Amino acid sequence: MKTEIISIGTEILLGDITDTNSSYIASQLPSLGIDLYWVTQVGDNLGRIKECLERAWGRSDLILTTGGLGPTEDDLTREAIAAILGEELRVEPELERQLREFFSSRGVPMPESNIKQATLTPSAKAIPNPRGTAPGWWVERREKLLIAMPGPPSEMQRMWQKEVFPRLRQRQGHEIILSRTLKTFGYSEAAVDEMVAPLLASPNPSLAIYAKPDGIHLRITAKAEHREKAEEMIAQREENVRSLLGESIWGCDEETLEEVVGALLSEKGLTLATMESGTGGLLASTITDVPNSSIYFKGGLVAYSDEAKIPCGVDPALIARHGAISPDVAGAMAKAARIRLGADIGVGVAGGAGLEELEGKPTGIAYIAIDDGKNERVIRGIYPPLRPEVKRRAATHALFELRKALLSP
Amino acid sequence: MKTEIISIGTEILLGDITDTNSSYIASQLPSLGIDLYWVTQVGDNLGRIKECLERAWGRSDLILTTGGLGPTEDDLTREAIAAILGEELRVEPELERQLREFFSSRGVPMPESNIKQATLTPSAKAIPNPRGTAPGWWVERREKLLIAMPGPPSEMQRMWQKEVFPRLRQRQGHEIILSRTLKTFGYSEAAVDEMVAPLLASPNPSLAIYAKPDGIHLRITAKAEHREKAEEMIAQREENVRSLLGESIWGCDEETLEEVVGALLSEKGLTLATMESGTGGLLASTITDVPNSSIYFKGGLVAYSDEAKIPCGVDPALIARHGAISPDVAGAMAKAARIRLGADIGVGVAGGAGLEELEGKPTGIAYIAIDDGKNERVIRGIYPPLRPEVKRRAATHALFELRKALLSP
Repeated sequence: MKTEIISIGTEILLGDITDTNSSYIASQLPSLGIDLYWVTQVGDNLGRIKECLERAWGRSDLILTTGGLGPTEDDLTREAIAAILGEELRVEPELERQLREFFSSRGVPMPESNIKQATLTPSAKAIPNPRGTAPGWWVERREKLLIAMPGPPSEMQRMWQKEVFPRLRQRQGHEIILSRTLKTFGYSEAAVDEMVAPLLASPNPSLAIYAKPDGIHLRITAKAEHREKAEEMIAQREENVRSLLGESIWGCDEETLEEVVGALLSEKGLTLATMESGTGGLLASTITDVPNSSIYFKGGLVAYSDEAKIPCGVDPALIARHGAISPDVAGAMAKAARIRLGADIGVGVAGGAGLEELEGKPTGIAYIAIDDGKNERVIRGIYPPLRPEVKRRAATHALFELRKALLSP
Repeated sequence: MKTEIISIGTEILLGDITDTNSSYIASQLPSLGIDLYWVTQVGDNLGRIKECLERAWGRSDLILTTGGLGPTEDDLTREAIAAILGEELRVEPELERQLREFFSSRGVPMPESNIKQATLTPSAKAIPNPRGTAPGWWVERREKLLIAMPGPPSEMQRMWQKEVFPRLRQRQGHEIILSRTLKTFGYSEAAVDEMVAPLLASPNPSLAIYAKPDGIHLRITAKAEHREKAEEMIAQREENVRSLLGESIWGCDEETLEEVVGALLSEKGLTLATMESGTGGLLASTITDVPNSSIYFKGGLVAYSDEAKIPCGVDPALIARHGAISPDVAGAMAKAARIRLGADIGVGVAGGAGLEELEGKPTGIAYIAIDDGKNERVIRGIYPPLRPEVKRRAATHALFELRKALLSP
């Protein structure tokens, strides 16, 4: 089924908004077994919208549009669809009733221009949109399917999830497509590619590799006649991947590393404190992105200068002897954080995020220490020398090592 | 000049990456006086790339492509351009020399497949790409201009800024279009809209309003025959906007609030320390996103739990009396950060980023205190109740208030 997406709205072409609707829909289509061939963005211009729709109607089996369903003169998607179908727009009494009710329930009069949103053509059916005043359109004619959805992402995503996706899945019939993403840290994209090379040739289940800010992701996709069969294929392939990549896999699908670590800490009833230099607070900030992280996260110390490490509990003699970016200072930072903030585990990150050499060491180096009062482990990380990247990578690495420490017996 | 963008890469159509290159370029075109008509995304398929390029070559005066310039078999942009021009690809000796040098300077042999990246056609000129191995292409024929840029955003943006934008500006000739963005914090989009309403009707200079994570931005754009005239129009309109929005304007154009604050601290030779609860380290992390921030930023304390505030220097009796989210505790946090970390100025942020009510106060409330040893000011902020949003808004607000304090006599 050849499919294309058309995003409608001049604000996209002005660069005022990024078209996230297209990438959202695009990411959903593989699990329906639908192949996306083209994405087009076009402004609020009737001629150009019609031209795009006509081409799409000629070359694609499924056309998904977003945007241009609002009540103003600039909203022209309905007019353009009616024109390419050669059909007339007419007000649908039931839609008009719902629309008037929407406004009266809010105690405001309906602007008469809104009546546009209650129109349909004979081949178009309305798709409910409880989050807004613009219903979607579902148009089927001559084996072709055109679905028009509103532009605001919250309205579009709800319509997609509750209405469009389930109906498309039903139409797609017996073939089931499932995916599972395994997330790794520690190997480069090229290294992962080499390690799983024997598995890359298989078309079903297929395996794809993606470099992401939190490491390298592997997506396994399986097509089968039944859900059970697809699940079994994925489980088997996952086992192969796990045997090749082992400990570097830290999570699956929607999980984040900070959630994984938070869940482990909660499960074990342990608390955490951090002390960081080069990551400058990003480690603490990432940990506290998780709801209810206050249950296990006591707090953090951001010792950005050497002087700040001393009142935070690091022995100045240690800095003088080994340098601020050293395994010894990282260990002292972890220990000081643990003791000062009364936590079970302390994590120390000693490293520079700047672009210059520091203390004769190339920047992009960090030492990560984990101290639970009984054991201390220190790991060295080397990261690409771009400031925000180093902070992100070092903070991710610290969470990755913390996860390992929490899982070790 | 009818313009279109073509983004090439199957990973975009799979939804694995969002095409931010298009919106980046789209946002740059208005200042060149160039109108963008279409954006198309297409996968790594020679037939479909050719089809898109042929249509573009027919209907547009300027075509900008990104992606598909890598060394692998999937990278087909060069082949597709050569095909629609009816020209042959040939290895350009100078490009080959540069490419081999790139690899040998890294001490690795050049994979022979990379030789693709040293090819051109007779009408194509290479555009330098010091960030990668793929030069861009600049193709001019029959009044049409096609520019191919690499897909990785850091390579594309550098090429755009240093090579493509300046050359396009020169071609655009006598009409000059200049823009200036004023950045505000503290008012909602609707409030700013109302305040500047009398200025919105003017088409030249025009004024546009955008809601961004760091506040509301206003973009003034002026068209004129000479640069001086455009600059004068912008300066005049900026004066009007400033008289309406006053102190809420904190910066211009590419400036970030953390850079503005950092520059003020450097200028005055002052140092800074922070202590934050609800923002969980994001304030310190934002401050340390600025290169060389270690000169003025001593460090930060992330007191995520009440127990952590005590070893960090906050009197437990104060927490018991006023609650952790209170002006008094915020003030004590600012003072403790200043004294503990030996800084000239302390900033305290006391607030919850969770979704539940805390101590009977709706979350999304933070108290921000700034203490320089002589004066203490405390401000209350209320933010939308979505976790990452609250953290971001409260950290931005703290920087905004710090800027005000640094500027006050």
